Amino acid sequence: ADIVVLPGDGIGPEVTAAAVDVLRAVARRYGHHFRFDEKLIGGAAIDATGTPLPADTLDAAQAADAILLGAVGGPKWSDPNAKVRPEQGLLAIRKALGLFANLRPVKPHVAGLGASPIKPHLLQGVDLVVVRELTGGIYFGRKQRSADSASDLCEYSVFEIERVVRHAAKLARSRSGRLTSVDKANVLETSRLWRDVTTRVIRDEFPDVTLEHQLVDSMAMHLIAKPRAYDVIVTENMFGDILTDEASMLAGSLGLLPSASLGEGRCGIYEPIHGSAPDIAGLGVANPYACILSAAMLLRHSLGLEGEATCVEQAVSRALDAGFLTADLAGEGQRAIGTRAATQAVIEQLE
Amino acid sequence: ADIVVLPGDGIGPEVTAAAVDVLRAVARRYGHHFRFDEKLIGGAAIDATGTPLPADTLDAAQAADAILLGAVGGPKWSDPNAKVRPEQGLLAIRKALGLFANLRPVKPHVAGLGASPIKPHLLQGVDLVVVRELTGGIYFGRKQRSADSASDLCEYSVFEIERVVRHAAKLARSRSGRLTSVDKANVLETSRLWRDVTTRVIRDEFPDVTLEHQLVDSMAMHLIAKPRAYDVIVTENMFGDILTDEASMLAGSLGLLPSASLGEGRCGIYEPIHGSAPDIAGLGVANPYACILSAAMLLRHSLGLEGEATCVEQAVSRALDAGFLTADLAGEGQRAIGTRAATQAVIEQLE
Ligand SMILES: CC(C)[C@H](C(=O)O)[C@@H](O)C(=O)O
Ligand SMILES: CC(C)[C@H](C(=O)O)[C@@H](O)C(=O)O
Repeated sequence: ADIVVLPGDGIGPEVTAAAVDVLRAVARRYGHHFRFDEKLIGGAAIDATGTPLPADTLDAAQAADAILLGAVGGPKWSDPNAKVRPEQGLLAIRKALGLFANLRPVKPHVAGLGASPIKPHLLQGVDLVVVRELTGGIYFGRKQRSADSASDLCEYSVFEIERVVRHAAKLARSRSGRLTSVDKANVLETSRLWRDVTTRVIRDEFPDVTLEHQLVDSMAMHLIAKPRAYDVIVTENMFGDILTDEASMLAGSLGLLPSASLGEGRCGIYEPIHGSAPDIAGLGVANPYACILSAAMLLRHSLGLEGEATCVEQAVSRALDAGFLTADLAGEGQRAIGTRAATQAVIEQLE
Repeated sequence: ADIVVLPGDGIGPEVTAAAVDVLRAVARRYGHHFRFDEKLIGGAAIDATGTPLPADTLDAAQAADAILLGAVGGPKWSDPNAKVRPEQGLLAIRKALGLFANLRPVKPHVAGLGASPIKPHLLQGVDLVVVRELTGGIYFGRKQRSADSASDLCEYSVFEIERVVRHAAKLARSRSGRLTSVDKANVLETSRLWRDVTTRVIRDEFPDVTLEHQLVDSMAMHLIAKPRAYDVIVTENMFGDILTDEASMLAGSLGLLPSASLGEGRCGIYEPIHGSAPDIAGLGVANPYACILSAAMLLRHSLGLEGEATCVEQAVSRALDAGFLTADLAGEGQRAIGTRAATQAVIEQLE
């Protein structure tokens, strides 16, 4: 299988290197052959080529079986009024590959309970997935700027809503059969369309799935007040961006949360949901677990290697159980380990 | 002073009645004369007149010194595709009165710690105010709907941003001098304008205020992970809607959180941030504290009665300390009291 690796900026190179090491170990153990091809994206690409998504990167990504991505951005390129910005590379590649469904599973591991701001008894048994629409909405609508005003257009078509809702409904069906759709239908026209389409798709095509609607403001409360109540949550692009970062607090650290961005085909982008963490970049202390868990999602969703995916997830879980905690997870009096040691711990648990 | 009371729907009538009782007690104790004029809004107004904001209500509001509002909405009017919806009345009155700055203070009381999903040690000393822009952004932009798509336009002018940022900066100056502005400047054009204008206004007009920018997704994490780090937070309409509901979880219950919607003049709308809670409407068990605390904000901001405002706030605090807890606050084994008993407890603490 051909895997394109896009390390990006900040701690991106460190965590993708860790995940590649784990994938190599999986290949050895199971007799697979993975080819890794590293390409530029984000700030690193701007520095080298002037653009955040070079044609060469996009070509390689389009030909690949799967893409592993680190993170993009950092203070060096952070002037929001700059003409080229690292984030544009990320948005452009998601759009170009048609990766409209961004899956963000949240299943707190006991190692994160200490670091979570949420009371532990609320976290017991939490196991949810947010399916965020990723190539539509206000992120991609027409933007305008004049001397004294600015605007962003939020637009959704029936087609865009249908396909992500179907994706989420299939996922719900494979789990508990419960789906929560989040919108702001008491105010927004796009949300009213979202609600209509969601209601119709579930009624006509997924009569076995139980659908509940939530307003985004209430959801921002319920998500932390009663996280166990949710299984699959589907929502539009910007609401998903906000709610998934909030949901990450259930797991205690962003450093434990993977994501998969999927489309109609098999190829997807797999990336930790954390950012480039420029303050700790290059120090060898970044938490690699989220990127390693993203590699597990890659094995599952793009390569169809369910057993191997589960094996990696269990190895991460066992490494955490055994106390291999990076600085973001270590509590008072607990020793923190670095990126390499955490990666080694996972690889040892694999073999 | 002329106070227009807009009970609205669900528990709105119960909680506004409680707050009016407290205001009457304040008037007696301090020798003020408050006139209360009750008008229709929301679903109640739709049922009686066909429109969620009758002209008669708006006229009275425009002539008043202050407006006390309960809540609007409920399942009876909840078809999002209905032509008239209760929420339209709320949006229209905010806009018509030019109430662009929505203040939502969050200062957890010990009585809420049990009900909060957040670990108690993180809540110690939390004292923040979100200033939400209330009459611009995607709530009020052009909306379109066709057979196969829908759109909402998010628009901000320099003028709209300046005035709410000035409001927030003055508030920050009167507190710790720290202001956090929240946007999504790595993606949205309106957010880049927001960031530019905020930076300039603070630099040129409030050099004594320390400004920090946060992306809305990070803020959704930090708000619960390190709430003590924030003092005044200023943000646009929709982000403010989501973040304030999330922030309410710091206080344990929506039932403790007041709000004030202010403009250039003295008149404002004061309302609890909770909704109409149709499931418990009419049962006499609604928590009146948020509406009573909203009345305290009314005394402070519209009537200039700072001492009286503080007195009401202290009375609520003492009632809570004394264990007068409504069902949303009572823990296991604690007796829950109803709306009237809670209101009486506050009035007794006043006198
Ligand atoms: C970097 C940014 C454009 C991106 C987004 O908002 O989509 C990030 O926050 C994410 O959630 O993947
Ligand atoms: C009812 C609704 C329109 C309103 C809003 O979103 O502004 C409410 O959620 C609020 O926060 O006051």
